[in-house]
Amino acid sequence: MSNRQDKRTELTLHAVAGNGLLDRRLFLKSGLGLGAAAMLTPVIKESKAASESAAIDATDIDLASPPWMHTPGEGFSTYGSPSEYESDVVRFPSPNRAVPGNGVSWTPLHLLEGTITPNGLHFERHHNGVPHINPLQHRLLIHGLVKNPSFFKVDDLLRYPMTSRICFVECGGNSNAGWNKAPIRSEAGYFHGLVSCSEWTGIPLTVLLEEVVPTNKAKWLIAEGADAFAMNISIPLEKATAEGMLALYQNGERIRPENGYPLRLILPGLEGVMNVKWLRRLKLTEVPIMARNETSRYTELLPDGKARMFTLDIEAKSLITSPSANMLLRQPGLYQITGLAWSGRGRITQVAVSADGGKSWADAELQEPVLSKAFTRFRIPWVWDGKRAILKSRATDETGYVQPERRQLVTERGRHGFFHYNAIVSWQVDELGAVSHVYDDEETTTDSPGTIDIDTGWD
Amino acid sequence: MSNRQDKRTELTLHAVAGNGLLDRRLFLKSGLGLGAAAMLTPVIKESKAASESAAIDATDIDLASPPWMHTPGEGFSTYGSPSEYESDVVRFPSPNRAVPGNGVSWTPLHLLEGTITPNGLHFERHHNGVPHINPLQHRLLIHGLVKNPSFFKVDDLLRYPMTSRICFVECGGNSNAGWNKAPIRSEAGYFHGLVSCSEWTGIPLTVLLEEVVPTNKAKWLIAEGADAFAMNISIPLEKATAEGMLALYQNGERIRPENGYPLRLILPGLEGVMNVKWLRRLKLTEVPIMARNETSRYTELLPDGKARMFTLDIEAKSLITSPSANMLLRQPGLYQITGLAWSGRGRITQVAVSADGGKSWADAELQEPVLSKAFTRFRIPWVWDGKRAILKSRATDETGYVQPERRQLVTERGRHGFFHYNAIVSWQVDELGAVSHVYDDEETTTDSPGTIDIDTGWD
Repeated sequence: MSNRQDKRTELTLHAVAGNGLLDRRLFLKSGLGLGAAAMLTPVIKESKAASESAAIDATDIDLASPPWMHTPGEGFSTYGSPSEYESDVVRFPSPNRAVPGNGVSWTPLHLLEGTITPNGLHFERHHNGVPHINPLQHRLLIHGLVKNPSFFKVDDLLRYPMTSRICFVECGGNSNAGWNKAPIRSEAGYFHGLVSCSEWTGIPLTVLLEEVVPTNKAKWLIAEGADAFAMNISIPLEKATAEGMLALYQNGERIRPENGYPLRLILPGLEGVMNVKWLRRLKLTEVPIMARNETSRYTELLPDGKARMFTLDIEAKSLITSPSANMLLRQPGLYQITGLAWSGRGRITQVAVSADGGKSWADAELQEPVLSKAFTRFRIPWVWDGKRAILKSRATDETGYVQPERRQLVTERGRHGFFHYNAIVSWQVDELGAVSHVYDDEETTTDSPGTIDIDTGWD
Repeated sequence: MSNRQDKRTELTLHAVAGNGLLDRRLFLKSGLGLGAAAMLTPVIKESKAASESAAIDATDIDLASPPWMHTPGEGFSTYGSPSEYESDVVRFPSPNRAVPGNGVSWTPLHLLEGTITPNGLHFERHHNGVPHINPLQHRLLIHGLVKNPSFFKVDDLLRYPMTSRICFVECGGNSNAGWNKAPIRSEAGYFHGLVSCSEWTGIPLTVLLEEVVPTNKAKWLIAEGADAFAMNISIPLEKATAEGMLALYQNGERIRPENGYPLRLILPGLEGVMNVKWLRRLKLTEVPIMARNETSRYTELLPDGKARMFTLDIEAKSLITSPSANMLLRQPGLYQITGLAWSGRGRITQVAVSADGGKSWADAELQEPVLSKAFTRFRIPWVWDGKRAILKSRATDETGYVQPERRQLVTERGRHGFFHYNAIVSWQVDELGAVSHVYDDEETTTDSPGTIDIDTGWD
């Protein structure tokens, strides 16, 4: 509580941008001095009983010897589950009311840390529910413009040479509420959580294609799933073979039913719909088949009446996950701002963070290793002074592409895009510490709060 | 079936060591020619219906349109589970018969791929069961030789600056059946699976210690868990702070009960017992307290009657996970040998593989990114000619340390070590394709098959 002046000096020394952003290296081992620790104190103090430690030790019997130290704990298990105290860390399903197997469930990005999404929380996007496929009865057919059309059993595929790759998968429709005229009020993960990141292991597509020997005319790959929707889509062969794999494992174990068991396509950096789950067929063709998923869907009407089609690459994007919408900062003090950045075009090279609504920016620390087409965790310390603040993050990838402000994106694309919303997200911290989603352009004031229209949004 | 001679030529061209080991780059995009694909054919052929594709298409109704394409699938879920067809991919519990909360459960390494262990399958080592801790009632006390002894609530710790790190945790007693006089018959994971690898996220220990301000006399850290065993151990302060963290998240989500919920120590590269789960207390001291876990346990009697103590670092180790014990190769042909390597002293720099019992060796491909103190997946193609073969892998780390042959380890350490068994593992493939665990020294022939003695092994 003393030397308030010292703390202010310390803050000034480390300040790197307006409204309290501090040098990203503050908490790294080399940069951590006593000043930093002292600054942390007020944040912790409120609920920490440090100064009364002796008193608590004597009077609080639970703390001295909590009940779980008095009786033997639970026995060993063959497959574990999260703690009962974490039951709110779940996917948020948004099914179509009329067709409950059609819709999405959102990854709770705002409740997670690091870069790997646990398998139980990977987002879902299905068109007619999750098939429970018996792998002994499943076949993959590769045919069309190939010399050796072939069926492959799952057991045989499991013996093929494999490769592993940590990468994200993002639905092209992720964050689509951003097109709403008023900012949606959902938690960050239930607005942006149609993206997850896993270590995928499988067979390089090039290896399988060598087996069937494509003819020179083959330029497209038509992928089809074995779900009750018979989901299909056309993929440029060159894009698919660049880094694509037939994935069988996710984060070490076999892929789960809702993620495509027994096998799916993983095409790093390409929009989620192309990463066909429950894959049963790859047909090589000369031209795309113009299926539903590349015509009525995943095609974006522009302001001039033309449409963007085959917008396959996921562009650079970032998101502050904490603090984020509907969280509460209990008191002014030192906080860590953290979030995720990713790009379908390669590595993230920079994430800039602003605490003053975009007037000034500072570089966040990027968690190593920074991997191409994978989640990149960023972090930067911030002192909240108790006044209104607007937090933003802005990602840049190795191609030099910079995540756009919302205003810029809406101007370029208009309002009928639905897909590929990747604008900078603004979180407002008000004087009470309440965090909410805001737009920093004029629209905010003229419209009522938006909601996800689950009947029309996912069909 | 034709040009058998061509295949043999191809094999000769790519051979890099005795008994069928091929160049590790064979399956990489740049090295893949038609020859490689042709060689794969016989392995796949047996059960693949490629040549009868048309016939199958017409007659096998399940294949043309399997049942799960006829009815809507399962709806969205808030937290997913593995496929019902993967119910054998489980941890294998080995509890003490008298005290069921004391023992281990093994990660099924032989059934997994990639490098990340899913949270549900991370190995367990408990002394009196798994406490189910209410995080609101849990406190971490840091005291002893510090200027500001402090309690920390979990909620407060969650606001501290964090870092993420992919690293393994290995029980010092992993692979201890290797000390048996006869080779144990378990599957690879149920022999070596007290090691798992996760992305851990938490607070660097240095940050927390800055808060309590250790005195100059503080040289050791006594860590204590909140389980019914009150598990404790002494850790050199310098070792703990080098890379140690107070972990709160594992693979993105909060740590699970059996892995230390709500918080645990993660000390990359140090033996598992030091990574104290359910952490409730860190006491800074001048000397170790000589607790059970650094005296009667985790101390290794040597042949000369002296004992190794405080053998904290995990030394380099590797293991072929496929093919491995109790698997069956259905017919001669091309296979991928794959496995895991790790070292507590840094990065793995090389994994050599032998298919002729150690006479000749070839470098396996290491999956990128190769991370310090993390699982490194290795792979190399191999043509099995149908005769008896002995497969081995040998890891080298960045310090130049080379994984020893079993003979060498036993000579140096004797038979009373129990801990830190890291010798090269030998898998024999017999003429029928059956894979079994063997020793390649004389002991094999003179003794009966070993088993894990679960009553005395874990206490």
